[in-house]
Amino acid sequence: MNNYSQRRKAGIVGVSGYSGRELLGLLESHGGVDPMVIPREHDAEATAAMVKEHHFDVVFLATPHEVSMDVAPAAIQAGAKVVDLSGAFRIKDRAVFEAAYKMPHTAPDQLAWAVYGMPELDRAAIPGAFLVANPGCYPTSVILALAPLIRAGLVDEGAGIICDSASGVSGAGHKPTAKTHFCAVQENFSAYGIWDHRHAPEMTHTLGLAAENFCFTPHLLPVERGILSTIYVRLTRAEPLELLLANYLAAYPSGGFVRLRDEAPDLHDVRHTNNCDIFIKLSSDGRRAVIVSAIDNLVKGAAGQAVQNMNLMLGFPEAQGLQ
Amino acid sequence: MNNYSQRRKAGIVGVSGYSGRELLGLLESHGGVDPMVIPREHDAEATAAMVKEHHFDVVFLATPHEVSMDVAPAAIQAGAKVVDLSGAFRIKDRAVFEAAYKMPHTAPDQLAWAVYGMPELDRAAIPGAFLVANPGCYPTSVILALAPLIRAGLVDEGAGIICDSASGVSGAGHKPTAKTHFCAVQENFSAYGIWDHRHAPEMTHTLGLAAENFCFTPHLLPVERGILSTIYVRLTRAEPLELLLANYLAAYPSGGFVRLRDEAPDLHDVRHTNNCDIFIKLSSDGRRAVIVSAIDNLVKGAAGQAVQNMNLMLGFPEAQGLQ
Amino acid sequence: MNNYSQRRKAGIVGVSGYSGRELLGLLESHGGVDPMVIPREHDAEATAAMVKEHHFDVVFLATPHEVSMDVAPAAIQAGAKVVDLSGAFRIKDRAVFEAAYKMPHTAPDQLAWAVYGMPELDRAAIPGAFLVANPGCYPTSVILALAPLIRAGLVDEGAGIICDSASGVSGAGHKPTAKTHFCAVQENFSAYGIWDHRHAPEMTHTLGLAAENFCFTPHLLPVERGILSTIYVRLTRAEPLELLLANYLAAYPSGGFVRLRDEAPDLHDVRHTNNCDIFIKLSSDGRRAVIVSAIDNLVKGAAGQAVQNMNLMLGFPEAQGLQ
Amino acid sequence: MNNYSQRRKAGIVGVSGYSGRELLGLLESHGGVDPMVIPREHDAEATAAMVKEHHFDVVFLATPHEVSMDVAPAAIQAGAKVVDLSGAFRIKDRAVFEAAYKMPHTAPDQLAWAVYGMPELDRAAIPGAFLVANPGCYPTSVILALAPLIRAGLVDEGAGIICDSASGVSGAGHKPTAKTHFCAVQENFSAYGIWDHRHAPEMTHTLGLAAENFCFTPHLLPVERGILSTIYVRLTRAEPLELLLANYLAAYPSGGFVRLRDEAPDLHDVRHTNNCDIFIKLSSDGRRAVIVSAIDNLVKGAAGQAVQNMNLMLGFPEAQGLQ
Repeated sequence: MNNYSQRRKAGIVGVSGYSGRELLGLLESHGGVDPMVIPREHDAEATAAMVKEHHFDVVFLATPHEVSMDVAPAAIQAGAKVVDLSGAFRIKDRAVFEAAYKMPHTAPDQLAWAVYGMPELDRAAIPGAFLVANPGCYPTSVILALAPLIRAGLVDEGAGIICDSASGVSGAGHKPTAKTHFCAVQENFSAYGIWDHRHAPEMTHTLGLAAENFCFTPHLLPVERGILSTIYVRLTRAEPLELLLANYLAAYPSGGFVRLRDEAPDLHDVRHTNNCDIFIKLSSDGRRAVIVSAIDNLVKGAAGQAVQNMNLMLGFPEAQGLQ
Repeated sequence: MNNYSQRRKAGIVGVSGYSGRELLGLLESHGGVDPMVIPREHDAEATAAMVKEHHFDVVFLATPHEVSMDVAPAAIQAGAKVVDLSGAFRIKDRAVFEAAYKMPHTAPDQLAWAVYGMPELDRAAIPGAFLVANPGCYPTSVILALAPLIRAGLVDEGAGIICDSASGVSGAGHKPTAKTHFCAVQENFSAYGIWDHRHAPEMTHTLGLAAENFCFTPHLLPVERGILSTIYVRLTRAEPLELLLANYLAAYPSGGFVRLRDEAPDLHDVRHTNNCDIFIKLSSDGRRAVIVSAIDNLVKGAAGQAVQNMNLMLGFPEAQGLQ
Repeated sequence: MNNYSQRRKAGIVGVSGYSGRELLGLLESHGGVDPMVIPREHDAEATAAMVKEHHFDVVFLATPHEVSMDVAPAAIQAGAKVVDLSGAFRIKDRAVFEAAYKMPHTAPDQLAWAVYGMPELDRAAIPGAFLVANPGCYPTSVILALAPLIRAGLVDEGAGIICDSASGVSGAGHKPTAKTHFCAVQENFSAYGIWDHRHAPEMTHTLGLAAENFCFTPHLLPVERGILSTIYVRLTRAEPLELLLANYLAAYPSGGFVRLRDEAPDLHDVRHTNNCDIFIKLSSDGRRAVIVSAIDNLVKGAAGQAVQNMNLMLGFPEAQGLQ
Repeated sequence: MNNYSQRRKAGIVGVSGYSGRELLGLLESHGGVDPMVIPREHDAEATAAMVKEHHFDVVFLATPHEVSMDVAPAAIQAGAKVVDLSGAFRIKDRAVFEAAYKMPHTAPDQLAWAVYGMPELDRAAIPGAFLVANPGCYPTSVILALAPLIRAGLVDEGAGIICDSASGVSGAGHKPTAKTHFCAVQENFSAYGIWDHRHAPEMTHTLGLAAENFCFTPHLLPVERGILSTIYVRLTRAEPLELLLANYLAAYPSGGFVRLRDEAPDLHDVRHTNNCDIFIKLSSDGRRAVIVSAIDNLVKGAAGQAVQNMNLMLGFPEAQGLQ
């Protein structure tokens, strides 16, 4: 992939934020793409013109969801594949989206063929996609931790699923606010968005769960980056741990980005990596499980997963530029 | 209480740890007691001799539980009341204690009349007690948050109660270890003691819950002090929030250390105070509740509550030295 | 001072910032004054009217210097003494002020009789003052560390005096900016204002030093509060350490807020106190000294020193409300 | 360098510490060497045997200086080149070493031909060296900042050179101590080793300065990694900034690891890189300069510079594995 003629061209909108900046760094050392910044001031029309002029193979949108809804269709029309890091296309059900984001969806036509870009859940759908909705940071940590158990029918959904997550401050965005002031965060810890965080519908939607069985509570940690989710489920039946683990190993073969651990992971285990580390521990009666997952919110939770999606979309090895 | 002849004498064993040091500071500015350090090297006999020599009214044990089991009976025999900050006397059921602490209880006779010193739960029992078991830090944050609902029969215990807590590093003790090294904690967050933390039996025992309905997961925060607990319960029936709040207000009248909040508290709200701030939020169907509580683990979770207990035991105003 | 009729009335302008908030907290527990917030929107006229209406004995201005220049004369005219926490009246030489603050001084008449409120340097001037300029945070840490040596003629000023200081983020103010975002500060450390920080003229002016002999470099620490200054001087002659210490002890008698230490102080030694801890160590040839001083920037560096000044101005014991 | 037969073999002693661990990580992704851990329990004889058995081209010693003095000669004798990360061979003058390290030098013969491994100062000496003394972390930040000015005769050494440095906690080592406990470091900042830190003789020795003209004060920062040094010099004559910068640019051509900056660097600018960023600012009279330098103490201050030295010693491109 070092031959210049084989290199692909990538445009990025929104490099001033944490995710966009991280993405630009990853692309610069990717080896197979030439990244170019698309000015944030560009409207949909100007972006499309730039896509045509430079023949971008892929355009990354590290933009607010209202901007993504506007720009994504134009970029696709102009010939590029799009990886959108916002929440605009993650929830296929327009009504659910509009309730969660409290705004109308202005590009509903794209929802039908947008692909939720979590390769470990559905790798096959990504190579052919024109629009990949890159998952949210919290949803990545929760969905990867729960999917193997839920798909195997091992979770007693009616008993309730509790997802207690904590994120570093970069997840709150680059814009200075009272909440992200150093003095507000240092030596502090807080819960927020209880019962109404917009990432909860993304999780239930993707996992096929009823909202009334699901509870997600995010917390703000005094760290720069990282998400740790501690997840509580009741099992449909007592199962030996080995069986549970077998489901995870089947979903996440060794050597991939999702790693099954034999002790609880922490943020240090995953920072600056595209890994999601998962640990599961059963109660003594074998009927309940605590699952802990850890990711770097800016890598597997945003920019790294976006590159992983691009690799699949453009035919690069899935892990290129991510190790 | 400024008249010297009315002042009481307090001995403290174990001032090198964080709780003992915090306690010494609180007692020095209490105004009604003269604190004196009892050397940590003193065995039970030497401690008892010192109690007799100085006529201590109260002795605080900020010692490991195995030391407390040894010293507490001797100090009481020598004429002092004892407030024990260890876990030695918190669980009245000897078998439960021994399973949780993985050691025999060497002072089982004291268990019968030891009083669990959480004034907001049972204030009447404390003034007459000779031995007060000062509650654990995590249990304080969890029990105060749950007790009003459980006592009112509003919690569907069979559906499971999840307590997800996070503590500052002072909770891990003063002794330098690999886990408390700055570089291990900074920019990190981790779960530990999943399904087997010794504070869980203290919680179930005190709240009268079956262990199989209860799950407690502690986490280590990169902060010096503070505990935030996020607690998940299913209610026995949908109730208006006002009714739930009424139970809390009945248990914790305005003006006390437990404060009902109308938004989620954070660690800053309570640090260096003896307060426990509690917030409750219902799901939209009114059947599930998330409760958030915050304390300073070294004050309400240890030294402050110990002073509060002493105040009740010696006849001082309950809040003296704590505001 | 508990008799209500003897209590004094204090107004505060600017309680939304860190200094003003800290000040309000200190006054609320002072015991001798009743603090009242003067709305920040009040102009000079409205403030004066409020001073008259409530008969404020003292008004604290925790406001930007341009506001203080406007409000201070009006408050004094209306009958209150003023403690100004801004830089408006700290430098008596109008030209020096205007060069440092890059703006005209709009209340030059007040400069003549404004008193620089550092009690340990000139306690006698404060009780009779109508306008006290509360010192800056960095200057407090530097001036207290240097004054005894300079006054004794022991510093070879021509050889240059280097003041290398580091402050917690609260010193940068409450307003969220890119520089105070948690992610910009965490795991970081930086120098700023090299050769042109406006606190340098306050230091040279107060200490009577020529600017060309003085160098001050502030740094931003990833902590909430605290200033540590490391100061380098060459002595006019080799002197035994005892003689140097004698000068400090003469200036700062035991029992006051400035404490001479026998090892280098750190920020923990002084946080949430009005103390300034000072340590001095000579080179082996006895010709050079390193002086380390530590303060809490919000207490001795701002609100605490303001209360100390108020105590002297209104006849309270100097340490009331500060211990 | 991807041909296996061309790959070189590297042994590392001491991978449990921060420097050794960082080094192992760098070597694993270097591409030209196969790293192998030499057990820390190995004495000199066993290490030498292992060098012979595995034909190590280079051995890295991330060990205490007393161990390095013992093991280095044996490893060289056994046929390997040695990069020693300890202070054992940095100071060629045995008496200076022994005074600084307060112990006899047990391998004085090696001192004569050990090479101080700071490539930017003397690149030519490294390729032929058998024993490279990898510079200390503080000295790297100070020497790189000062050398161009001193070599050009622009520093008035007699006026005194002040080096005020601050390091992250990883510089204090991996072993848990009271000083590295999270609660001792968080929200704190302190000076230590005033006038007697063992890195000062390394600096004066390397820069050819008289000890009486030099003052170095290290500080402990509440961050994991990074060193920022703020350095104060008086110039022999007023010079335009351009001339000073020209000296730096001559010493550190663009594209290397030492980068001249036009604003003060901070720790974020260099973390996880092998760069040393330098900024210089003159006083208004042009006679004094403040120089700020920033490095990652574990990379350019230890493991990265060790790899840089290895690259020169074994004929790899100097920057291989460091970008």
